[in-house]
Amino acid sequence: MRENAKEPGRHAQRMAAKQKVIQARIARADKEQGLLLVLTGPGKGKSSSGFGMAARALGHGMKVGVVQFIKGAFSTGEDAFFRDLPNVDYHVMGEGYTWDTQDRERDVKAAEAAWDVARRMLSDDSYHLVLLDELNIALRHDYLDLDTVLDDLQARPAMQHAIVTGRYAPKALIELADTVTEMKVVKHAFKDQGVKAQKGIEL
Amino acid sequence: MRENAKEPGRHAQRMAAKQKVIQARIARADKEQGLLLVLTGPGKGKSSSGFGMAARALGHGMKVGVVQFIKGAFSTGEDAFFRDLPNVDYHVMGEGYTWDTQDRERDVKAAEAAWDVARRMLSDDSYHLVLLDELNIALRHDYLDLDTVLDDLQARPAMQHAIVTGRYAPKALIELADTVTEMKVVKHAFKDQGVKAQKGIEL
Repeated sequence: MRENAKEPGRHAQRMAAKQKVIQARIARADKEQGLLLVLTGPGKGKSSSGFGMAARALGHGMKVGVVQFIKGAFSTGEDAFFRDLPNVDYHVMGEGYTWDTQDRERDVKAAEAAWDVARRMLSDDSYHLVLLDELNIALRHDYLDLDTVLDDLQARPAMQHAIVTGRYAPKALIELADTVTEMKVVKHAFKDQGVKAQKGIEL
Repeated sequence: MRENAKEPGRHAQRMAAKQKVIQARIARADKEQGLLLVLTGPGKGKSSSGFGMAARALGHGMKVGVVQFIKGAFSTGEDAFFRDLPNVDYHVMGEGYTWDTQDRERDVKAAEAAWDVARRMLSDDSYHLVLLDELNIALRHDYLDLDTVLDDLQARPAMQHAIVTGRYAPKALIELADTVTEMKVVKHAFKDQGVKAQKGIEL
C-alpha cells in the first residue's frame, strides 16, 4: 500500500460522497449495486482472478470492458482468449509503454491514452463490468494521476462493477473499494525452486 | 490449514518421491514442468483465479479439464461460460451432493464419483491443465481420502498442470504443491456493508 492521494481536501470530499452513496444503498431494500473490487498483494492470482470474474460475468450474459495497463509488449493467454469474444471490449496499452527504455514521458503518454479508454468504459452503463488489469502498477509509477483515477471510478454508473488488479494498491483506492483481497505468497515454484515460468500458467 | 495426512509413512514416501522429481527437474536445463498450484485462504478470488488461469491456458491452445466439487446445486457463470467451449471438459459434481440434508453417505458417494472423473483427467496427458475447483472443501469434510487424492495428483503426467482451489487447504497438499497463494480479506463489501452478493461478481 502507498501513501494517500495528494489532495486531502479532495480525498475528504470523495469519502463524504462515498458515505452518501453507501447510506443510499443501505436504504434500498435489495442492496444491489456495482462493486469496486481490488485484487492486490505479492501472491499469484490477481490478474487471473480478475479475468475469471470477467468470464463469470460473460457467462451471465454481461458486457465486459478490459483495459490492460502493462502487458502491451507481449501476448498473453488472456489476450488471445478474450480479445475476440462477443460482449468483450478489450484494450491493451500501446507499445509506447517502455519499462525497459525508461522513457518516462512516453510511458505517461501511453498510460494516459489507456486511461482515456478506461474512462470511456467507466462512463458507459452498457458495460456491466470493467476490468482494469495492472492499473496499480501504473499508479505506483505515477504514470497516472491518482485523484483523477479515483474520481472516474467513483463517477461510474451505479450498477457497474469495476475490478482493479496489481501489486501496491494505493491506500486511497483501498479506502474507496468495496471489496479488497490481498494475495499472499505461501510458496512459489519459480522463486523457491528455480522453475521456469510456464506458458499458460504464469500470472 | 489442516493436520497432515493420516499415514506418516506414506507421507514420507511421497515427499521422498517428490524430492527425486524436483532434483530431476533441476537437472534439466529448461526446467519446464507441470505445476501443482493451490489457491486457498478466506479472501475472494480463489475460484476466479483458477478459472482465469484456465482461460489463459485455453488462450494458449491448451486442453483443460475442470471438476467442480461443491457447486453442482446451482448454476454459476463459469459453468455457463466454460461448459460448451471447445478444448474444455467440464464436470460438475452431481446433485447427490447434499450439504443441506446432511446425508453424509450420499455426499461421500458424489464426491468419490467426481474424484473418479478427476483421476481420469489426471491420468490422461492430453489434458494440459486440470482445475479441481473447491476440492479443499470436499477434503475438509473428509468426503475424500486425502492420501488417495495426493497420490493421484503426484502420479499425473509430468507436464500437466493442476490447480486446486478452496479454503482450508490441507497441510500435506500445501507441502506437495509447487505454488501456493493464500487469499486474505482486507475488506469485504458483503460482510462489512450488508451488500447483497452480485450476479456475475460473487466468487
